[in-house]
Amino acid sequence: MTYCLAISLDAGLVLASDSRTHGGVDYVRTHSKMHVFGTRSDRLFVLLSAGNLATTQAVVNRIHRDIYDPDAAMSLNTCRYLFEAADYVGEISFQVQQRHAEVLQKSGFNPEASFILGGQIAPQPHGIFMLYAQGNHICASPETPYLQIGESKYGKPILDRVIEPGLSLEDAARCALLSLDSTMRSNISVGPPVELLIYRAGTLVPSRRVSYDLTTPYYASLREQWHQGLNSVFKGLPAFEWE
Amino acid sequence: MTYCLAISLDAGLVLASDSRTHGGVDYVRTHSKMHVFGTRSDRLFVLLSAGNLATTQAVVNRIHRDIYDPDAAMSLNTCRYLFEAADYVGEISFQVQQRHAEVLQKSGFNPEASFILGGQIAPQPHGIFMLYAQGNHICASPETPYLQIGESKYGKPILDRVIEPGLSLEDAARCALLSLDSTMRSNISVGPPVELLIYRAGTLVPSRRVSYDLTTPYYASLREQWHQGLNSVFKGLPAFEWE
Repeated sequence: MTYCLAISLDAGLVLASDSRTHGGVDYVRTHSKMHVFGTRSDRLFVLLSAGNLATTQAVVNRIHRDIYDPDAAMSLNTCRYLFEAADYVGEISFQVQQRHAEVLQKSGFNPEASFILGGQIAPQPHGIFMLYAQGNHICASPETPYLQIGESKYGKPILDRVIEPGLSLEDAARCALLSLDSTMRSNISVGPPVELLIYRAGTLVPSRRVSYDLTTPYYASLREQWHQGLNSVFKGLPAFEWE
Repeated sequence: MTYCLAISLDAGLVLASDSRTHGGVDYVRTHSKMHVFGTRSDRLFVLLSAGNLATTQAVVNRIHRDIYDPDAAMSLNTCRYLFEAADYVGEISFQVQQRHAEVLQKSGFNPEASFILGGQIAPQPHGIFMLYAQGNHICASPETPYLQIGESKYGKPILDRVIEPGLSLEDAARCALLSLDSTMRSNISVGPPVELLIYRAGTLVPSRRVSYDLTTPYYASLREQWHQGLNSVFKGLPAFEWE
């Protein structure tokens, strides 16, 4: 399984992903699920991937190939709007899944994959899209400023409590790290390293990109302070009337 | 959907459930999912139910009927061990599902239901069991002292952070209420009133049974203090090195 999330703020974007993949429970590996495409100075794209690893790797390979192919009908370099880029990636994803769908399904495997595409094409605003396995997509909005793919339920409550569009990039990044932490504590199919990318609107380059293991001092300290803080708030909660 | 949970502690049991049921999104109603059976002084049973409402109501009706039927082959009054009670309820549940399975499945409905059965038969210890739709069951253990049915993921992180067998009944009850709160904030298919039952080991009667709406002063205050406390801990988290 996988857990990736993206947050669209007034100040820019925060994207985060875990790195655990597995075939069944006995072939557990580490693969980055965060792919950055920044070949033209007027645009930046970050793609987060979940689902069948062969599908997601094939999609990323085709996106790279199209960028450098002057004859490609469409590429991340030639699309004019973020939603066109989402259409384009969704179409590639659907094609790749279809290619192996019949034989995979006969063998009991699922070729499906889903993606979050975030970025900016100047001079238009930044944004994030979630691409379903069928190739269609939705974008975030001020009322729902975050998107998730993969094992999304464990880490949703903290997002619902904290995230709003006016939050600072760093606060949203901390919230994303906590959302991943809650998920990793409750589900072993989601695991480190945790990748985090912060994009400040209008800059067209990643502002920060970091990778944290559980022992990386900053992430270890964040997780510990949060855990201790929660337990301390818990101990101070009001007593029942009969206590 | 539904969210019910039970916690087995050294001191006794805590059981909690939401009360929202729905057929699709447009027939939303309120039904208690907590059923207490205490007809003999040497035993107490609490049953939490999730899944198809017709199935869970039929199961509860049959359990009641068997208690008062001297010819019943088995009942909650005649079983000798908690695991026998779990076998018995699991068997009834499976029979009820089978009765309507074919016609329901043809109409696109799912007859499945799952249950948590908690209680005590003196002089044996107290315990909790989770009954799958197929009628088999698992029990909690000191390493995994809680069980959940229904929409269980949103409310799991707080349990994983706090619950251990030595916790007081009231602390575990507060944790169960927070677990339900996190779930209700993130998923509208789980809703109030929240029912809570506290059972002190060896007493063979419910110690406390309460029902909270979101506006009930104690629950409102608990939710608000937890929400404020989390936000306050969040604001105090360590800054990134570049901030």
